[in-house]
Amino acid sequence: MNFAVIRNLIGKILALVGLLMFIPLITAIVYKESARNIVSYLIPMLSLIIIGGLLGYIKPATDKKIGAREGFVIVSLSWLLMSLFGSLPFLISGYVTDFFTAFFEIVSGFTTTGASALTSAELNNMLVNGGHSLLMWRSFSHWIGGMGILVFILAIIMESKDGSALYILKAESPGPQVGKIVSKMKLSSRILYLIYIILTFLEIISLLICHIFDKEMTLFDAIIISFGTAGTGGFATTAASCSLYAPCSQYVIATFMLLFGVNFSIYYWLLVRNFKDIVHNEELRWYFMVVILAITIITLQIFRLYSSFEEGFRHAYFQVASIISTTGYTTTDYWSGAQGRWPALSLGILLVLMLCGACAGSTAGGIKQSRILILGKYSRLKIRSMIAPRKVEVVRLDGKPISNNVMTSTVAFFLLYIVVLVMCALLISIWNPAMNAIDGDPFTMLTASLSCISNIGPGLGSVGPAGGFSNFSWFSKLVLSFEMMAGRLELFPLLILFSRTTWKKSV
Amino acid sequence: MNFAVIRNLIGKILALVGLLMFIPLITAIVYKESARNIVSYLIPMLSLIIIGGLLGYIKPATDKKIGAREGFVIVSLSWLLMSLFGSLPFLISGYVTDFFTAFFEIVSGFTTTGASALTSAELNNMLVNGGHSLLMWRSFSHWIGGMGILVFILAIIMESKDGSALYILKAESPGPQVGKIVSKMKLSSRILYLIYIILTFLEIISLLICHIFDKEMTLFDAIIISFGTAGTGGFATTAASCSLYAPCSQYVIATFMLLFGVNFSIYYWLLVRNFKDIVHNEELRWYFMVVILAITIITLQIFRLYSSFEEGFRHAYFQVASIISTTGYTTTDYWSGAQGRWPALSLGILLVLMLCGACAGSTAGGIKQSRILILGKYSRLKIRSMIAPRKVEVVRLDGKPISNNVMTSTVAFFLLYIVVLVMCALLISIWNPAMNAIDGDPFTMLTASLSCISNIGPGLGSVGPAGGFSNFSWFSKLVLSFEMMAGRLELFPLLILFSRTTWKKSV
Repeated sequence: MNFAVIRNLIGKILALVGLLMFIPLITAIVYKESARNIVSYLIPMLSLIIIGGLLGYIKPATDKKIGAREGFVIVSLSWLLMSLFGSLPFLISGYVTDFFTAFFEIVSGFTTTGASALTSAELNNMLVNGGHSLLMWRSFSHWIGGMGILVFILAIIMESKDGSALYILKAESPGPQVGKIVSKMKLSSRILYLIYIILTFLEIISLLICHIFDKEMTLFDAIIISFGTAGTGGFATTAASCSLYAPCSQYVIATFMLLFGVNFSIYYWLLVRNFKDIVHNEELRWYFMVVILAITIITLQIFRLYSSFEEGFRHAYFQVASIISTTGYTTTDYWSGAQGRWPALSLGILLVLMLCGACAGSTAGGIKQSRILILGKYSRLKIRSMIAPRKVEVVRLDGKPISNNVMTSTVAFFLLYIVVLVMCALLISIWNPAMNAIDGDPFTMLTASLSCISNIGPGLGSVGPAGGFSNFSWFSKLVLSFEMMAGRLELFPLLILFSRTTWKKSV
Repeated sequence: MNFAVIRNLIGKILALVGLLMFIPLITAIVYKESARNIVSYLIPMLSLIIIGGLLGYIKPATDKKIGAREGFVIVSLSWLLMSLFGSLPFLISGYVTDFFTAFFEIVSGFTTTGASALTSAELNNMLVNGGHSLLMWRSFSHWIGGMGILVFILAIIMESKDGSALYILKAESPGPQVGKIVSKMKLSSRILYLIYIILTFLEIISLLICHIFDKEMTLFDAIIISFGTAGTGGFATTAASCSLYAPCSQYVIATFMLLFGVNFSIYYWLLVRNFKDIVHNEELRWYFMVVILAITIITLQIFRLYSSFEEGFRHAYFQVASIISTTGYTTTDYWSGAQGRWPALSLGILLVLMLCGACAGSTAGGIKQSRILILGKYSRLKIRSMIAPRKVEVVRLDGKPISNNVMTSTVAFFLLYIVVLVMCALLISIWNPAMNAIDGDPFTMLTASLSCISNIGPGLGSVGPAGGFSNFSWFSKLVLSFEMMAGRLELFPLLILFSRTTWKKSV
């Protein structure tokens, strides 16, 4: 294990997170918040910059390559440390008193989950009693987490000449394959980030235009919601999520959620006018097919529950976009709302979308549509091979054969996803004194676990759109925090921390 | 496709099912039931024997081998046909008026699921108004299905000289590998069947001894419950399942449920005093470890809900034995009973046990413990190989390396299991006019689907121990019937019926 490189890189990452805290600090100054709030950013900022600077300043003596083990350890530890420091503003400012709640909240932010452990009273307290900067910090953490802080690091700080940094990218970037767009990593990380920034600005501007018809959509809300959409996170300014905004704002948000669920390579290809690759992209076609199918079925099932067909369609469109992109904003309470519970098929479709997620190479969580495609084709192949065992067939994606290695990794990933999902659901079932047997039924636990591993936000049952994660015990919050990170980092980086082999001197 | 062999074998199977209907016919005569009841057995019996005799009498002209396709088609079609004829007694006798309910009921019987689509009124009507023979037919179908009617056929009728019948056994016998015990198939099928019969008799006798302390346990009940236990089915004489029996009977039933979940090779080895293989059997150790762990946790969680520690332990023991063996008898309503809902962890453990099932080579359903072991070891291997990609490791079971073929089949099986589970949950969500959005929530649909694919019986929610499948629409009942068969036949035989390749002239 190359500890020098690990130390050095983690140092750089921590320093960067310290610098990024300027955004909520500026917000606090603009909103003329209390001195305590200002201090609550200054303490972690200074700690991060000093500690990070010290760790990152000393260049590693050896010039060894970064291996898979180092990559995974760097990614896992830096996510852990930045979450620890990131939770400090909530605690020092006094708006959150429980450490595990604050930790859960910021992990939920960085991992772009958007599940909140704050009660609606605590959330309202921030908005009403001078805590705008904390809301900003929460949502900004989505934006940071969205594209992967390490791709950021790679693009801005690190000098990557020998491609050894690929392991970090592999550990953090979503999807089964590191696409060809990242062949020149430093350049393409910058392009991806530029696309990310441009799309975010486009959304802020679009929402400000909506402000003409929608007085609820202030500049503050537009920024918060856009950060939450870009990172496919889901933190809003109130517990009402997006239900109070006017229809036009809801349509804009839903559309951008869908767009942030698309593989960013597509936008790159759009920029360089490579339309052939876009047309031949199977995942993109499949993604929009699933979206259209889901919206159609759900609209037909629910429109009678609402006052007009348009309203039914809008809620179906918004919820499908929100869940498949793993954002987690809501416009209606489909579990316990006044209009009545959505029918089982509609809710079932939402649950399946939660598991699947959006495209690889986007900011979304979940298993990813390309993996679902590969798994589907693999299943068909396996059924066929039962009939004709001697016939050798290959699975193709975008016309190209999938290597055996990618295939078994995808299947193993699916297996581990289900294992982690079920294990965490059992672990969070153990002890929650604030829940009775009805609130904390196994279905709530299962959807809470699913929501966290896929980085969505809401689940069903008592963690549904009107509920939240505030009733879970500190132990359950810790387990769910781990699960959100495991989901965001696509399982392996966190799981290998539990393997003895990782910590051996040599492999 | 060798249609002549298919026709011939299906004929023999149908004739056998016709002969087996003598059991309920005799019951009807003993209980002096109405002439209509007698006729309701005579019609399907005569049809089956005549049709089956005609199909089976003409020897296939060609002497071709039976391939995988033929094996799968024979198994699937014969299960379908015997279920169609098996549902007739319910309909002709008039105790059940809806075809899909009768079909669901007998599929649930043959597949050893034990999920009932009858209302408790319909069930009570059979018991009170001269329908004992129908209750017997339901439970006897468990016993027939339990060991696999085709293993029976193999052992009694078929002359298998060239081992080509292995495909049928492979298609029907539970577990990832056809064990070495079946090397001399005809002989060992007979031995397995003998063990099965002996164990069933032992249970009947034990329950009759319990009758001294338990007046509810009549001879009729003892036979019904023993058939249900042997096949790991779960049909009882009333909707109260086993909750009205005395503690001693409940302990006896629970113990036999566990015993029928053990790989039958173990009993064979016991007979031939091959203790070495028993000691080294990893699956057996794992199975009992899981059982003990589950009982301990659940007992500690629930004993305060009941009047004594003993009662809590007894319910934990019974429910764990019932669910892991995929039998589905219950002694307490853990979902909506008077003692209150069981805590989330206990219910979560039951759900996980539903997915896993008992040992391969037993009459149980589910994924099977040996597959769970293989999947667990495979996951660990995959995590390790992320750290040290060049190191080649093998997965071992009972000290012997698992071939790559068995491994990928097991992983593919798990994948397909989840796919079928989720797809069927969605399909049965589509249309159930007798359910509102609260009764038919997605959790009910998911556990109903899980209960059927793993051949258990009860689920949670409105298909919990106090509920049932009577509120589902005819379409949902049909889907669930398919799913029970798919689960019983371990997916592939039924799934390949949907593949075009199967129906091509040549492969």
